[in-house]
Amino acid sequence: MGTEVKGLLKKGKSRIVLLVADGVGGAPHPDFGGKTELEYAVTPNLDALAKKSVLGLMLPVNHGITPGSGPGHIGLFGYDPEELQIGRGVLEALGVGLALKEGDVAARANFATQDAQKVIIDRRAGRLATEECQRIVEMLAREIQEIDGVEIILKPGKEHRFVLILRGEGLGDQVKDTDPQKEGYRAHEPQALDEKSEKTAKILKAFLEKAHALLRNEPKANAILLRGFSQPPVLEKFPERYGLQALAIAIYPMYKGIARLFGFDTPDVEGELKDEVAYLEKSWEQYDFFFLHYKDTDKAGEDGDFAKKVKCIEYLDTFIPRILALQPDVLVITGDHSTPSILRGHSWHPSPVLLYSPFAGSDDAARFTERACKNGYLGQFPAHFLMNLILANALRLGKFGA
Amino acid sequence: MGTEVKGLLKKGKSRIVLLVADGVGGAPHPDFGGKTELEYAVTPNLDALAKKSVLGLMLPVNHGITPGSGPGHIGLFGYDPEELQIGRGVLEALGVGLALKEGDVAARANFATQDAQKVIIDRRAGRLATEECQRIVEMLAREIQEIDGVEIILKPGKEHRFVLILRGEGLGDQVKDTDPQKEGYRAHEPQALDEKSEKTAKILKAFLEKAHALLRNEPKANAILLRGFSQPPVLEKFPERYGLQALAIAIYPMYKGIARLFGFDTPDVEGELKDEVAYLEKSWEQYDFFFLHYKDTDKAGEDGDFAKKVKCIEYLDTFIPRILALQPDVLVITGDHSTPSILRGHSWHPSPVLLYSPFAGSDDAARFTERACKNGYLGQFPAHFLMNLILANALRLGKFGA
Repeated sequence: MGTEVKGLLKKGKSRIVLLVADGVGGAPHPDFGGKTELEYAVTPNLDALAKKSVLGLMLPVNHGITPGSGPGHIGLFGYDPEELQIGRGVLEALGVGLALKEGDVAARANFATQDAQKVIIDRRAGRLATEECQRIVEMLAREIQEIDGVEIILKPGKEHRFVLILRGEGLGDQVKDTDPQKEGYRAHEPQALDEKSEKTAKILKAFLEKAHALLRNEPKANAILLRGFSQPPVLEKFPERYGLQALAIAIYPMYKGIARLFGFDTPDVEGELKDEVAYLEKSWEQYDFFFLHYKDTDKAGEDGDFAKKVKCIEYLDTFIPRILALQPDVLVITGDHSTPSILRGHSWHPSPVLLYSPFAGSDDAARFTERACKNGYLGQFPAHFLMNLILANALRLGKFGA
Repeated sequence: MGTEVKGLLKKGKSRIVLLVADGVGGAPHPDFGGKTELEYAVTPNLDALAKKSVLGLMLPVNHGITPGSGPGHIGLFGYDPEELQIGRGVLEALGVGLALKEGDVAARANFATQDAQKVIIDRRAGRLATEECQRIVEMLAREIQEIDGVEIILKPGKEHRFVLILRGEGLGDQVKDTDPQKEGYRAHEPQALDEKSEKTAKILKAFLEKAHALLRNEPKANAILLRGFSQPPVLEKFPERYGLQALAIAIYPMYKGIARLFGFDTPDVEGELKDEVAYLEKSWEQYDFFFLHYKDTDKAGEDGDFAKKVKCIEYLDTFIPRILALQPDVLVITGDHSTPSILRGHSWHPSPVLLYSPFAGSDDAARFTERACKNGYLGQFPAHFLMNLILANALRLGKFGA
């Protein structure tokens, strides 16, 4: 974790903006003159800001490691993603907008097709239509609301996916996945891997029995596969850890959900970046720390759409003057990971990072790009140190040692 | 700690100079064309040296962490400041020029004012005049020389500050501060936090009783507050650890004191940088390793005096030819931390570092500045790795592994 900063915190009021352009970092693309998305984009406002900021490259997890969205944000919030992990079930639950309570056990669920011998013949139930999934999940939720005092919460996702939550006393999350991961096998029984999870396994078994009875006449979705059993991590919340009133401005449930786990206020913000920036402006007096999440850069990268990702970056650029007009004490622009269009997905490339404050210094860089960042004053550093740099630049950290 | 180099050490005779310009690193200042102190200064000799040296940026402790002088020097001497810490009392004792023995317990002491109910109404006794402090400390030192076989050593500092040392057998340093840190409260009793410190607490209690009786007629300084109880760290001394005969040339007691803790020879050197360099020249044949401490850069930075700090850097520059004339095997110029004038204090900014040796290579840099260093061949690294680089360049380290 590095130096424990809690003992160094100084009280005060700050205005800190952490603008996360999801997957903003990229890689050179041969079809676009060997440029990256940030290099190809026309970004007059980011260019001007880069000139008076310090730059660097952040390792979301470690050299060569491609992070999921969980580890990507854990690092940005100052927690070591190799130490603190968020389970798959919990992330899926956050992704469909479920609020989790301490002690809940969440699982990622799939509808699947099994034959008369209970052999799984399609792990995705023929990629069930989303509306079908909704209909069936609603039926199950109506029929199974509680088992032995444990509340059963179900919420549909896209296609064959849904989320199961067990809410009750004395549940552990050490249960083996029931998903056999391969067709041609039966699903596993829910099996507890520690004593604390015996009750969980028992409830899951009862749930699967009831559900499978209710599904027996479904032509495709006649089985359920569960994996990624997990509980929300027990952690020191961000506001206590850093002495900052923290607001998350995010439109996608996943990012709001992650921020909520860390104790951010997570209001409902509808719309797009324009609306997020408007929300930032209107909340400016109420918080010290603003996490603003912009999703579209990542989406375009995941789609392999270089030109679209460039457009998203150019769109983001137009909002920089409005953010600067608020006169933040510290403004950081970075990603939670890179998403090069050429790779159509998250990657291991370090995230370019820009930090602006009156005391940070400056690299005198002409642009905010991966190649400018690699020459930056901040050098290359693990993402979970970013919060130290932010607090230092906000003058909220005292001296270490006499 | 990184690789253990002790097993790799090669015998030999070297001439290594570690020139520490305290707080030399800075930050761009808007009133001086957005330049840092090093950038603004005219430094023909450092420029010429930079051209044939390798440069880098050193993290004194870690990203975003502002070190005190203790951690700053611990790192330069090759010890990890996150592992090895020097307590407040010990540093204060070194700062007033007290030599500590193993097992001593040192505390930072304040004169304070208490009312008839022993409630502290001024934690600094109205910022007592330094001469008053001297008078009262001398009186106390005369009256209380020993308690139960433990020697009591007192030495005045500036204004209301002084240092208390207990010297005797079987003392621990785990005692709670008596300073309540806020006015309107009584001082705490000295309370042992482990068994080994019971005796310390008992002696402290007796000392405070006697002292308070002697102070009862003082109008302002009628109470004593103690904090930062600590013992000199038990450590492998620098000369043994690195196989180097080591000399510290420093004028301020604090830096001499820290060097002495690490086993450096610490002669009395009076005067200023000129005298320090003369001392270096005259001791050239007697040592392998010369730690030369130049304080004035830090002082000017702490005063927020950019122009003065520039002058100090330019003055330092004039001595570079004399140091090079000695033909050191390795010459390093750096700071123990940065002290940007714009921040009027220590900061988290990495320290620019220059390493010159016939085998180091060169960056072909035009100048020795923060921005030149960030592009340097040495990259960005924790300060406690500097000693490895120094030993390597002095050809004093063998191969690691076969």
